[in-house]
Amino acid sequence: MNYNKIFEDIHAELSKVDNQGSVAGYIPELSGIDPNKFGVQLTTVEGDNFAFGDWDERFSIQSIAKVFTYVLAYSCIKSDLWERVGVEPSGTAFNSLVQLENDKGIPRNPFINAGAIVICDILVSQLKSPKEDVLTFIRELAGIDNINFNSRVAESERSTGFINMALVNFMKSFGNIHNDINEVMDLYFNICSIEMSCMELSKSFLFLANNGVVPYSGRRILSPSRTKRANALMQSCGFYDESGEFTFKVGLPGKSGIGGGIVAIHPLRYCITVWSPPLNPKGNSYKGMLFLEEFTTSTELSIF
Amino acid sequence: MNYNKIFEDIHAELSKVDNQGSVAGYIPELSGIDPNKFGVQLTTVEGDNFAFGDWDERFSIQSIAKVFTYVLAYSCIKSDLWERVGVEPSGTAFNSLVQLENDKGIPRNPFINAGAIVICDILVSQLKSPKEDVLTFIRELAGIDNINFNSRVAESERSTGFINMALVNFMKSFGNIHNDINEVMDLYFNICSIEMSCMELSKSFLFLANNGVVPYSGRRILSPSRTKRANALMQSCGFYDESGEFTFKVGLPGKSGIGGGIVAIHPLRYCITVWSPPLNPKGNSYKGMLFLEEFTTSTELSIF
Amino acid sequence: MNYNKIFEDIHAELSKVDNQGSVAGYIPELSGIDPNKFGVQLTTVEGDNFAFGDWDERFSIQSIAKVFTYVLAYSCIKSDLWERVGVEPSGTAFNSLVQLENDKGIPRNPFINAGAIVICDILVSQLKSPKEDVLTFIRELAGIDNINFNSRVAESERSTGFINMALVNFMKSFGNIHNDINEVMDLYFNICSIEMSCMELSKSFLFLANNGVVPYSGRRILSPSRTKRANALMQSCGFYDESGEFTFKVGLPGKSGIGGGIVAIHPLRYCITVWSPPLNPKGNSYKGMLFLEEFTTSTELSIF
Amino acid sequence: MNYNKIFEDIHAELSKVDNQGSVAGYIPELSGIDPNKFGVQLTTVEGDNFAFGDWDERFSIQSIAKVFTYVLAYSCIKSDLWERVGVEPSGTAFNSLVQLENDKGIPRNPFINAGAIVICDILVSQLKSPKEDVLTFIRELAGIDNINFNSRVAESERSTGFINMALVNFMKSFGNIHNDINEVMDLYFNICSIEMSCMELSKSFLFLANNGVVPYSGRRILSPSRTKRANALMQSCGFYDESGEFTFKVGLPGKSGIGGGIVAIHPLRYCITVWSPPLNPKGNSYKGMLFLEEFTTSTELSIF
Repeated sequence: MNYNKIFEDIHAELSKVDNQGSVAGYIPELSGIDPNKFGVQLTTVEGDNFAFGDWDERFSIQSIAKVFTYVLAYSCIKSDLWERVGVEPSGTAFNSLVQLENDKGIPRNPFINAGAIVICDILVSQLKSPKEDVLTFIRELAGIDNINFNSRVAESERSTGFINMALVNFMKSFGNIHNDINEVMDLYFNICSIEMSCMELSKSFLFLANNGVVPYSGRRILSPSRTKRANALMQSCGFYDESGEFTFKVGLPGKSGIGGGIVAIHPLRYCITVWSPPLNPKGNSYKGMLFLEEFTTSTELSIF
Repeated sequence: MNYNKIFEDIHAELSKVDNQGSVAGYIPELSGIDPNKFGVQLTTVEGDNFAFGDWDERFSIQSIAKVFTYVLAYSCIKSDLWERVGVEPSGTAFNSLVQLENDKGIPRNPFINAGAIVICDILVSQLKSPKEDVLTFIRELAGIDNINFNSRVAESERSTGFINMALVNFMKSFGNIHNDINEVMDLYFNICSIEMSCMELSKSFLFLANNGVVPYSGRRILSPSRTKRANALMQSCGFYDESGEFTFKVGLPGKSGIGGGIVAIHPLRYCITVWSPPLNPKGNSYKGMLFLEEFTTSTELSIF
Repeated sequence: MNYNKIFEDIHAELSKVDNQGSVAGYIPELSGIDPNKFGVQLTTVEGDNFAFGDWDERFSIQSIAKVFTYVLAYSCIKSDLWERVGVEPSGTAFNSLVQLENDKGIPRNPFINAGAIVICDILVSQLKSPKEDVLTFIRELAGIDNINFNSRVAESERSTGFINMALVNFMKSFGNIHNDINEVMDLYFNICSIEMSCMELSKSFLFLANNGVVPYSGRRILSPSRTKRANALMQSCGFYDESGEFTFKVGLPGKSGIGGGIVAIHPLRYCITVWSPPLNPKGNSYKGMLFLEEFTTSTELSIF
Repeated sequence: MNYNKIFEDIHAELSKVDNQGSVAGYIPELSGIDPNKFGVQLTTVEGDNFAFGDWDERFSIQSIAKVFTYVLAYSCIKSDLWERVGVEPSGTAFNSLVQLENDKGIPRNPFINAGAIVICDILVSQLKSPKEDVLTFIRELAGIDNINFNSRVAESERSTGFINMALVNFMKSFGNIHNDINEVMDLYFNICSIEMSCMELSKSFLFLANNGVVPYSGRRILSPSRTKRANALMQSCGFYDESGEFTFKVGLPGKSGIGGGIVAIHPLRYCITVWSPPLNPKGNSYKGMLFLEEFTTSTELSIF
């Protein structure tokens, strides 16, 4: 199928739609982004690539990084992961403390902030050099060496991240954070600051569409069963309290970040990444969601 | 694929597992059921059938009926459905009032009790003889004429259904119930009382695996796009606050009822129904969930 | 002390204040009231009376009636009252269902709607003719024979009282309502419809300022210890989620109703009733609260 | 009245009661305390003193200190106090984050942890040497020079105080903390560590029973109106989510701490302090509450 033509058509149509979203404004590094940036990259498991617009420009992947840390933790530990974080959608905003209070410090899933912080705590326990090891892992997935943290972004996140500091302290009070809070949060704020392009994201997520094996390197990251479960988890929990909406309208597992990126997986077929900075009120890319809805509708392909 | 052998193997394995569930006990018609009943029926879109155990015995389908009423409402009204009920998982128990208070009377989705009651209200507005019309709809889907309400069950539900009465009154206070409460609840309590076998459920759900068309009659129930969305909704919301768990472990869209039945769909392939009365603490069939987890694991087939 | 002069002075001052409240609008019998009505009546335990404005005009006492039913229940039953309703302020609005869900059907106190409904259920169990008996009780307290229900108000409350119907059904699901729901709610909606004047309210509440004895008849209603506790309960819970504000600014135990009335007690001294229909956002009389704040400030008398 | 005899009688009676409370166990300095310690001290506004048991032994006053900081803040700032903290009982536990989320970072009152932290933030803004100035204030109230922080307790609180760190970070995210978090919490943890005896507490709280003036020094701390309001606030909010119970059973404004101390005020009469370390499940001294209930019942004196 020639996806390039479809990309162009949808983009042309979306150009007529008023973008009701607004760029994340809480740190200068994000608020200064050009809201008209728009990129798409689709990579098939056979290695075909289809791209459009600003597909080659790096942006702040933010919460998309939570999939990398989750997969790394899931691949290197055996037992206690699911005692410390759940697999249920939260039903509330991504940074809610209410749910944590009800559930005694166990976050609902690894893709809300609290859950991703627990995953960082697990990685701090498991890895020798957590920050470097995570970076190495992502670089190998993408096959690209110069993927990196943006230290200014990480610093801005740290100096404004009071809710995340509240979350980690609150979970520590329940005994669900084992390491020093500052070390855990240093990893957390840094992984959120990683910058990648649509192309790099599609390449690095492709193993999730390929039964757990990186197609071009042949390296197995997860077993087939765990790969399916990782995809299932993105389906249930990848879009904060809009996960049902994304499932309903797009019908693919995926993960968004407040940098405006969305990665989605069609198992055994492809990985697609869209980038458009303005966000809807739930914190997901406004045009990114519209684009993917149109895409699965016009290709008549979804997992359902 | 010969599913019969797989059914036997999994059943043999599950026989060794201690059933930690317990049969729903709030009305005599349910609490008196034999907890050792166990049936499976898988029907493919090509018309092949595979069955095991008590596949031919009718049981109370309870919340599984919410899919029928949702599809019927979705197929006969155009516009305002999604203004009155959402598509997000609830994150809380199936009968929670808290969420309704926060969301000003709009239930999270059509598969929690509050949402199914709104759907009944829509059907009361749309249909001439709501109870008969729903029954006719289900009979046509199943191709079986004598499917019926169990009036004793409906009466027991009515006389003990105080939480459901609380839900409907609460939504009426927000203006989200348009008809007389008693008429709406009469429909609601009756559809929950319908009795069907695994075989009948698999046949009547098969259009959801077949792009919206009943295979043996050729009748279109939903458009392909709406069929995908109905499946997506079951994936997100079909198992109360255990929907994420079911997605994670089984990886198929489905719907459970507290009669112990679970129906699951593999789009373009098959519909499978399992029945085992004892329920886990979340209200889903304990062995039914285990069975389906083993089934998708051993066949290595899921949507993810 | 000559309270008449103080009443006049405060009223003159309040006349300059813009009334930011608005009259309760959910039933025609309340929404039609003249917002400029204003009455005060203070009755001392020695029998002195001070009055101002529309002190002699009857209005719908609404939630103020909850004190009468509470005292009647408290005086006629021994043991299980405090197993079925608490003594803590709710911290939420008067008709919240959230708190009931957390507390498993036990209302926080007898002065929120849910608590008053439980009290009605107790009275239905204890009294032969609940409606008549409550009316007789109030008439004796006031020493006035023609105090009565307003059946049109009761009927309007019943036909719009969906939240209250939700509350009673929800509590029944927890087993905290023992009688038929319709019988309980018939009592509830009727007691809320009672009409009394400032003068009649001050007279009928005076026993709470007099150690439990009606001064002019000598009849003991409650023991001194229970009288103190009834006053304490009004202090903690008499003004919905504004009880702290009333305690802080006025410093007397009291009870308000959405008809615009407020009754307050200064133990061993007097009972004062104010009536001004427009309500603040919390459902308490806007000018009534201001008046009492000015009154206790200028007389330098409060319980603290 | 000879209170000594009453003290002895009540103590004798309470000796027969099984103490169902347990000593606060989260830091070694508190968990090591002898659970049988018991002291009472009553000081009248005329200067009479009545004491019993361990009235002269210092203990950790913990949350009782929140009254000192509140009064100090209330006496030195004019305007914005009530924009940053409320006067309503919380209806939830002392360290709840849920309520803060609903109320957008404004704590319900100055006596729950979050509210006391906001008060500390105000004092850090207002005072030159916050820790020393608070200590000086308390020493002057008590007329005793060697009242001090316990630095080991403060350090233990800091190293285990994750919920409090969550609270302060969460409020900072809403803009309701103006100063550096560490500076604010240093004050907070220190004031909680102050050690005083029953006698010292009764003396230092006596101005609240004396219209705002310290009886023996003649120094005015608060105006009469603000004194009444401070007492009212203790009545509404002094005992976490057991404030209604204390009001109902004891009928005096007061404040408790998890060191096992309770201070209560009878306006224009006396201040009474009780100390008994084991706490009930709500965090208030088990025997302290029983003692005060018996005391106001047998003296037939309360504010109601």
